[in-house]
Amino acid sequence: VGSTKNRRKHIKNSFLLGSSIALGTSSCDEPKTDLKARTNKKLKTHKWKMVTTWPKNFPGLGTGANKLAKYIEDLSDGRISLKVYGASELVPALGVFDAVQRGSVQIGHGASYYWQGRHPATSFFASVPFGLNAHEMNAWIYYGGGQELWHKLYKPFGLLSFPAGNTGVQMGGWFNKKINEPRDFKGLKVRMPGLGGRVLSKLGATVVTLSGGDIFQALKTKNIDGSEWVGPYNDLAIGLHKAAKYYYTPGWHEPGTCLEALINKKAFNELDDHLKSCVELACKAANQDMMSEFTLKNSLALSEVVKNKEVEILRFSDSVLSVLKETSNSVVKDISEHDEISKEIYDSFKNFKEACMDWDKASEHSFSLARQVKSAK
Amino acid sequence: VGSTKNRRKHIKNSFLLGSSIALGTSSCDEPKTDLKARTNKKLKTHKWKMVTTWPKNFPGLGTGANKLAKYIEDLSDGRISLKVYGASELVPALGVFDAVQRGSVQIGHGASYYWQGRHPATSFFASVPFGLNAHEMNAWIYYGGGQELWHKLYKPFGLLSFPAGNTGVQMGGWFNKKINEPRDFKGLKVRMPGLGGRVLSKLGATVVTLSGGDIFQALKTKNIDGSEWVGPYNDLAIGLHKAAKYYYTPGWHEPGTCLEALINKKAFNELDDHLKSCVELACKAANQDMMSEFTLKNSLALSEVVKNKEVEILRFSDSVLSVLKETSNSVVKDISEHDEISKEIYDSFKNFKEACMDWDKASEHSFSLARQVKSAK
Repeated sequence: VGSTKNRRKHIKNSFLLGSSIALGTSSCDEPKTDLKARTNKKLKTHKWKMVTTWPKNFPGLGTGANKLAKYIEDLSDGRISLKVYGASELVPALGVFDAVQRGSVQIGHGASYYWQGRHPATSFFASVPFGLNAHEMNAWIYYGGGQELWHKLYKPFGLLSFPAGNTGVQMGGWFNKKINEPRDFKGLKVRMPGLGGRVLSKLGATVVTLSGGDIFQALKTKNIDGSEWVGPYNDLAIGLHKAAKYYYTPGWHEPGTCLEALINKKAFNELDDHLKSCVELACKAANQDMMSEFTLKNSLALSEVVKNKEVEILRFSDSVLSVLKETSNSVVKDISEHDEISKEIYDSFKNFKEACMDWDKASEHSFSLARQVKSAK
Repeated sequence: VGSTKNRRKHIKNSFLLGSSIALGTSSCDEPKTDLKARTNKKLKTHKWKMVTTWPKNFPGLGTGANKLAKYIEDLSDGRISLKVYGASELVPALGVFDAVQRGSVQIGHGASYYWQGRHPATSFFASVPFGLNAHEMNAWIYYGGGQELWHKLYKPFGLLSFPAGNTGVQMGGWFNKKINEPRDFKGLKVRMPGLGGRVLSKLGATVVTLSGGDIFQALKTKNIDGSEWVGPYNDLAIGLHKAAKYYYTPGWHEPGTCLEALINKKAFNELDDHLKSCVELACKAANQDMMSEFTLKNSLALSEVVKNKEVEILRFSDSVLSVLKETSNSVVKDISEHDEISKEIYDSFKNFKEACMDWDKASEHSFSLARQVKSAK
């Protein structure tokens, strides 16, 4: 799958970039658990390796993986020790699935849509265009039957996954030209991986593949007309606000991307019940934590963009969104035709989405509007 | 403080109600940890009591407290055992603060605005009118300095608190008359506790105090004109859709109510570092979990309301919201004048809110709008 190869290149390069950013504060690389393990020496201990699809300490995502590792060590009182590897340190970013499946490592941190090549339905457990926001993804997975379907999907691979982070709604991308009508995508050269890219290419865009580290130069020199990356926090870190003028909302293609802790089932089953709880609840706490970090960091970063007079924050027009939505729905529906489990996941996801849209409108959306209402005086 | 007394009455009565609903599935009342504790017998064990401001097994809130207790037991491998008491089983709902402060119990589950009478700034750590949504509350507390301020506020009481659940945006209430203009509140008899009630009374409403169990009858017989409760999940459980015709959005008065695990500091400090981590991360996982449950259950319940032809779901008009907002801002600002720590908390909260409003607009809000756009065909 093309998008998979692209991701590999992109993540490899961003790694170099990530190293120079070096925002990470976690220090969970070294097993510092010998003392604790000795105290508990009658109880079985486990040495785990965690491989990640992120550059080491990559802001939000890589630091989120570090945090998950630390939570597991803390909760297990050191009975599970973890060494975290950034992308390409032990295996390439897109080698995480294979490595965890083989059992050469016990756990991975990434996003399940990277494994579209293994099974197209993996996308539903990360994000699909016009899908669910973060609250809804969590509600579907924890309470709406999503977790059971995820286990069922990964069972033939000898794997299991828990949610372990969320980016929230991403941004729609940086563009050098205004997109007023759906036809404006025609002939544009845009960097957008995955299902979002498939949608744009159906609208006549030339979808190109570029690593994170190459976006800035390509946009700046107008070699491409537009590119998505993540959100303000990550986008500003690679300088995209100095490369393009128009910053579009919303991230219709990734409205609440769930990150996963991908675990080798045999390794998981070697844990006693207590340690299994530690892993599962560490994931749940890490899930909460990452979303909170992104909410704060994206808010602060967007404030910078708002102050920047060189950048215009624009919203895709309703006519553009309407066509993006229709095309997205058909691209997502295509997945359901792959096999029986894909259909089952698609139906569950779609039914849940339909059930929660009215509530979103009446709650978060309605309050957000209320807070924006101008004062009477 | 009047609203505190009202809450007490309301919660006591809802307890009776809650018992008959009996939705809880948790069974963490009995310490089932003797075996585990023996395995770890060299390590110190702790018997904790958890008192709650909710009726036992009250949907979402009481079951959330049960879940927190279970998480702490599981993560500590039984080294902390917990017995959970519903409101009035051991102490009255509004006796939780005192009981935990005294140390007769070690932990409480409730919402910090119940302790407004102890210190008005406690409201900021639950919810204030036109304040923060759930993502933002968590971002402020975990990453924006909120947790440190919360510790500082509770220090003189010998207490500390962690977030341990969130209801999300609540609903604006059930009314028998339409509210078209701000002046329509004048002379209305409305049940709304806390700061929201203070706002409505400034707009000329007669704010009455009624327990949860009495709302249905009062609304049905038109003894009152309107009442808030929680959200669709809890509101339908007490039959409010059969008592009033107009269901208003949004819950401007409680846009993302954070629940707290209130802990006696001395008891907490008797825990070793590992157990401290267990408690803190159990709270973080419980926080994530409750919001996910409310998102699902409120979505399903609202779908029922939408189908119900006897009920109209309405949104407060911009002119109403504008006046509610202005009045709310002044009521919330009043708190800042109480003392130095109130001012510090108010400033931190307000600055954070200002920083994150643009991001909310560009992310969750913009995506929600996009998903509502009509299809082109």
